[in-house]
Amino acid sequence: MKLNQRGLLIVVSGPSGVGKGTVRKALFDIKNHNLVYSVSMTTRKPREGEIDGQDYYFVSKEEFLDGIKNDKFLEWAEFVGNYYGTPLDKIEAQLDQGKEVVLEIEVEGALQVRERMKDAVFIFIVPPGKQALYDRLKKRGTESEEIIKQRVEKADKEFLLAYKYDYIVVNDDVNNAADRIMAIIRAEHAKTERTIHNYIKMLEE
Amino acid sequence: MKLNQRGLLIVVSGPSGVGKGTVRKALFDIKNHNLVYSVSMTTRKPREGEIDGQDYYFVSKEEFLDGIKNDKFLEWAEFVGNYYGTPLDKIEAQLDQGKEVVLEIEVEGALQVRERMKDAVFIFIVPPGKQALYDRLKKRGTESEEIIKQRVEKADKEFLLAYKYDYIVVNDDVNNAADRIMAIIRAEHAKTERTIHNYIKMLEE
Repeated sequence: MKLNQRGLLIVVSGPSGVGKGTVRKALFDIKNHNLVYSVSMTTRKPREGEIDGQDYYFVSKEEFLDGIKNDKFLEWAEFVGNYYGTPLDKIEAQLDQGKEVVLEIEVEGALQVRERMKDAVFIFIVPPGKQALYDRLKKRGTESEEIIKQRVEKADKEFLLAYKYDYIVVNDDVNNAADRIMAIIRAEHAKTERTIHNYIKMLEE
Repeated sequence: MKLNQRGLLIVVSGPSGVGKGTVRKALFDIKNHNLVYSVSMTTRKPREGEIDGQDYYFVSKEEFLDGIKNDKFLEWAEFVGNYYGTPLDKIEAQLDQGKEVVLEIEVEGALQVRERMKDAVFIFIVPPGKQALYDRLKKRGTESEEIIKQRVEKADKEFLLAYKYDYIVVNDDVNNAADRIMAIIRAEHAKTERTIHNYIKMLEE
């Protein structure tokens, strides 16, 4: 029996290049999950193999700025010249349906969500060391030297923000990291502040 | 990679008759666990099938009171005329070895542990309803009518103490409850306050 019926908003974030997307995919590959993915909106160009509406909603800068003006984002950020944001509509409804909504977002955006969604769960994905992350960023090879340098500098700042998160999960093995996130979701559902209300109701029945 | 190397002290408690012992046994039946059980000391008579040094250390009242005087218990309680306590020696050493030490104790004792071990994890096992617990207490059939009545009254008071715990886990299905506790242990190891210190060290290496 699950005392907390409402879904959780799971914010998966971490320094640029840590492999947030890969961890998120491994998470969704776990059997019998109850997760839904909140697709972000971005103005950056699709990378090879990325599908509109699945990896991101790819929109123009004009469309994005219009969304900001109309308060349509749970969070948004400008990052290396592109905009990224989380459309608010659907998230609350999904949570009410008992779905766990997974947001995979940049650090800047995650801290905005923290302000607005006090009961969300914040998970910081970290590399097994700084060098591992630098290597990853260089290997990706889809961006220019200058953009890689910007990402490394950004990551170095982001490393220091771990303390603002509820959990720190090392991405040394992607399946391990995904399993640990799944354990965090199960554990969070049992937390006293999420369960005490229904527990008291259950006792009285 | 596990950022927190130290074991956790896991306090499994709950109202009298909720099935703490059964849940604890199911927990230890899960494969590849790293749990050790802290055997309690008691002055109560062994029930059928209970083994000294495994289920409890069965001691005389004199021995027990001596232990209290010499501060040898992490917690102790008098309960329906008998004493129950957790011997302090070994627990710290086991935690340092990275073992998860499981304490299955009464509510009164758990709240004493809370005072002394701020970083322990407190799990409150609850029945799927009050009636389920009353039925269990009656079915056990090892105690007299009077003792059952005392236990029911005690349980009714204990139900109200759930809010003092970190997690509430329903024992409607013993394996479900055990799995959830295992998820809590994994999640707790990833908590920022337990990992940030080693995370910073890891970054610098």
